[in-house]
Amino acid sequence: MRSESTICALATPGTGAIGVIRISGPATFTIVEGIFSPATPGKVLQNQSPNTIHFGTIQDQAKVLDEVLVSLFKAPHSYTGDDSIEISCHGSSYIQQKILELLISKGAEPARPGEFTQRAFLNGKIDLSQAEAVADLIAAESEGAHKVALQQLRGGFSDKLKALRKQLLHFISMIELELDFSEEDVEFADRKKLVQLVEEIRTLIHELINSFQLGNVLKNGVPVAIIGRPNVGKSTLLNAILNEDLAIVSEIEGTTRDSIEDTITFGGISFRFIDTAGIRETAEPIENLGIRRTYQKIEQASIVLLLTEASDEIEMVHHSVKVIREQLSGASKQLVVVLNKSDQSSDEQLQKLQQSIQLQQNEWIISLSAEKKENIDGLTNLLLEIVNVGSIKHQDVVISNIRHYNALISASESLTRVSEGLTSGLTSDLLAQDIREVLHFLGEITGEVTTDEILGNIFKNFCIGK
Amino acid sequence: MRSESTICALATPGTGAIGVIRISGPATFTIVEGIFSPATPGKVLQNQSPNTIHFGTIQDQAKVLDEVLVSLFKAPHSYTGDDSIEISCHGSSYIQQKILELLISKGAEPARPGEFTQRAFLNGKIDLSQAEAVADLIAAESEGAHKVALQQLRGGFSDKLKALRKQLLHFISMIELELDFSEEDVEFADRKKLVQLVEEIRTLIHELINSFQLGNVLKNGVPVAIIGRPNVGKSTLLNAILNEDLAIVSEIEGTTRDSIEDTITFGGISFRFIDTAGIRETAEPIENLGIRRTYQKIEQASIVLLLTEASDEIEMVHHSVKVIREQLSGASKQLVVVLNKSDQSSDEQLQKLQQSIQLQQNEWIISLSAEKKENIDGLTNLLLEIVNVGSIKHQDVVISNIRHYNALISASESLTRVSEGLTSGLTSDLLAQDIREVLHFLGEITGEVTTDEILGNIFKNFCIGK
Repeated sequence: MRSESTICALATPGTGAIGVIRISGPATFTIVEGIFSPATPGKVLQNQSPNTIHFGTIQDQAKVLDEVLVSLFKAPHSYTGDDSIEISCHGSSYIQQKILELLISKGAEPARPGEFTQRAFLNGKIDLSQAEAVADLIAAESEGAHKVALQQLRGGFSDKLKALRKQLLHFISMIELELDFSEEDVEFADRKKLVQLVEEIRTLIHELINSFQLGNVLKNGVPVAIIGRPNVGKSTLLNAILNEDLAIVSEIEGTTRDSIEDTITFGGISFRFIDTAGIRETAEPIENLGIRRTYQKIEQASIVLLLTEASDEIEMVHHSVKVIREQLSGASKQLVVVLNKSDQSSDEQLQKLQQSIQLQQNEWIISLSAEKKENIDGLTNLLLEIVNVGSIKHQDVVISNIRHYNALISASESLTRVSEGLTSGLTSDLLAQDIREVLHFLGEITGEVTTDEILGNIFKNFCIGK
Repeated sequence: MRSESTICALATPGTGAIGVIRISGPATFTIVEGIFSPATPGKVLQNQSPNTIHFGTIQDQAKVLDEVLVSLFKAPHSYTGDDSIEISCHGSSYIQQKILELLISKGAEPARPGEFTQRAFLNGKIDLSQAEAVADLIAAESEGAHKVALQQLRGGFSDKLKALRKQLLHFISMIELELDFSEEDVEFADRKKLVQLVEEIRTLIHELINSFQLGNVLKNGVPVAIIGRPNVGKSTLLNAILNEDLAIVSEIEGTTRDSIEDTITFGGISFRFIDTAGIRETAEPIENLGIRRTYQKIEQASIVLLLTEASDEIEMVHHSVKVIREQLSGASKQLVVVLNKSDQSSDEQLQKLQQSIQLQQNEWIISLSAEKKENIDGLTNLLLEIVNVGSIKHQDVVISNIRHYNALISASESLTRVSEGLTSGLTSDLLAQDIREVLHFLGEITGEVTTDEILGNIFKNFCIGK
């Protein structure tokens, strides 16, 4: 299944030392020969070995545009599986634009976002979940996000899924054969082995489904809300975390207007501090906890840091905790009560205050001094502990893609029906129908079953040139 | 002259489909073998042919960091002249950073700005003016700037200069030989041929000096000031030029605070419209032509566009022209009187007004309608005519670098003394001294004579990775 058109795009961003332009498709060599003049006269690119690099100039008729290196890749041993060339030019916007114009004038088409990767998928070089991992890998900014994307790119869970799906395919063909002989009451498909296989698939699927929360945390970061009355030290705390060794910060615009998120990465995990604009610009009083902004922050968060002062009246702290608990009730969120300005209280006072708060499930308490930078690492370690970062080290297969998650949930439901059907001795035709559904949902993940709409949705979010 | 250390840097900017990391120096292969695991087990990069590409993974000990392509270049056939490898990885900031960290942990050093190009110069791959052209080429955003930089990169004038300098070197060795035999009154150096050579060099140098103004225009663009009373249509005119076909616009921050320049490129030349922030935000009255802002704008400009309305009172237009002329007096600037809103006047009125202004040298007049977009191309053609864009097509050698210009002026002065000395029969020792000076200044351009300070100044403005 080779591509019909030849596409081109800039694969590097903006102006820099080097720009790389990718061309891929059946006419790649013809098109590039038309604008490339090799330093060795008479050299024909088409006759050169694949995976070799050649020096020369890009020419617009007689006019030299740039001195470049071209790297040659021949089908099927290229990223896309088609003939491909990468032109490494000087990274000026003028040169890059002109080379693309020249390629297009010779018959290449501008590539759509992700079209190179889409072709790699269509040509069978990678499966769909691997294709999706390419975009995730490029976007990954933390060790955790990188790990999940790379594992997925390298086959990760999809190899296993494909193998199990193949076995299931074998069973369904046997069962459907039985249908042809339905009047003879034969049983080609070994029901005992089928039960075993179904169990094996269920185990893997449940493992994957359970890994989604972690995968999502790794990929998208953990949303954290810091709340507390004015001047309790919210912005000082944020800065103190920021200044910890190894913390990397990036400020990104939130989806809502005027909202800014600070993302701080430590221990390989990104923590997204929600709407930190509010912390900086204004301070909302805890008395007004009911106000919309705080509500929204809490709603978006997985972890809520309730900041109080260690020297606060015990009753006041208890009241704040009570108000927050009421808000969190029913939602599966983690609450961390942070007693700030610990340096201004005695150890005895701190201990008394900590003990006076009866921690419930998913609640934690810690004392620190944001200003004096005392026990900040205690807080970052606690946050890592809460997201159960330890489990990442041991978890081999993690999914992080909501599309995969939904398909796995659907596959799991169908699988339950198959399992029940096997127990209750369901007729072969109904059993086959349920198995078909499982095959469909598993196939959606790896791309063995797909539609133009699914593909369109996946690749539209890619960058051009990938 | 091979480099001693091995350097590495990211050669592509930011996050994108592909990131390219460059490594160059004697330990390149050893360092990369230490982190690269080839897809073909047992493959040793050092044993592979140069100019080949190999697939594999970058590993941090047992941990796979990315799937990459490595391109191999061997001394002296590389950009720097040293052994070099380019790693083409997924363009995520995390991956790029980690690979650089790995390379550094294995003994590579982070490259300084322009260090790859500096090594290419030090290894004799390119001369100094070619090295300078690399940075110009990357920065070039117009056809004109690109042409000058590429011509310089490809040897352009420096090959000629080097050849003439070599001949001059021969003469000086002959003349210095004469000094050893000074008591015998011999003449090894043929004075007649020396006169010829000096004339040849002078011709080339003067050609180059004369090309500097044009080169500067091509490289840096033409500064244009638009002045005129409020509501006369300054911003409408700017927008009309912008909307002309082929115009490319970029908005850049000026050197002074609050100042914005719009750069519009047409006919291959960039025109920098000075301090257009003023045009947009406020409008300064022509009655207040004396105000500082207008002064500054005119001072920075090569071309001043005085905008008036075609329907203005003749006396009023004459007065404006008079005020501007007084300001421009003595400065070599071009004045274009633009009669705007030409659609609201009869042809007769327009003609009368145009004729009533007695144009002096470096003055031009044109009528147009910015709002109706009438004769905008007339103005852009006039601007191109003023900067004498026609001469670019025929000019083979153009210099655009102020360092070269200054060295050529100095060389020219010394050459005049040589010429006079030859006419007046100056003694060989004094003649030799003047020729030495010429050699010095010409050598500075191509880098045959250089100091660490000169090199430092040149390469500090490069981007890292080039």
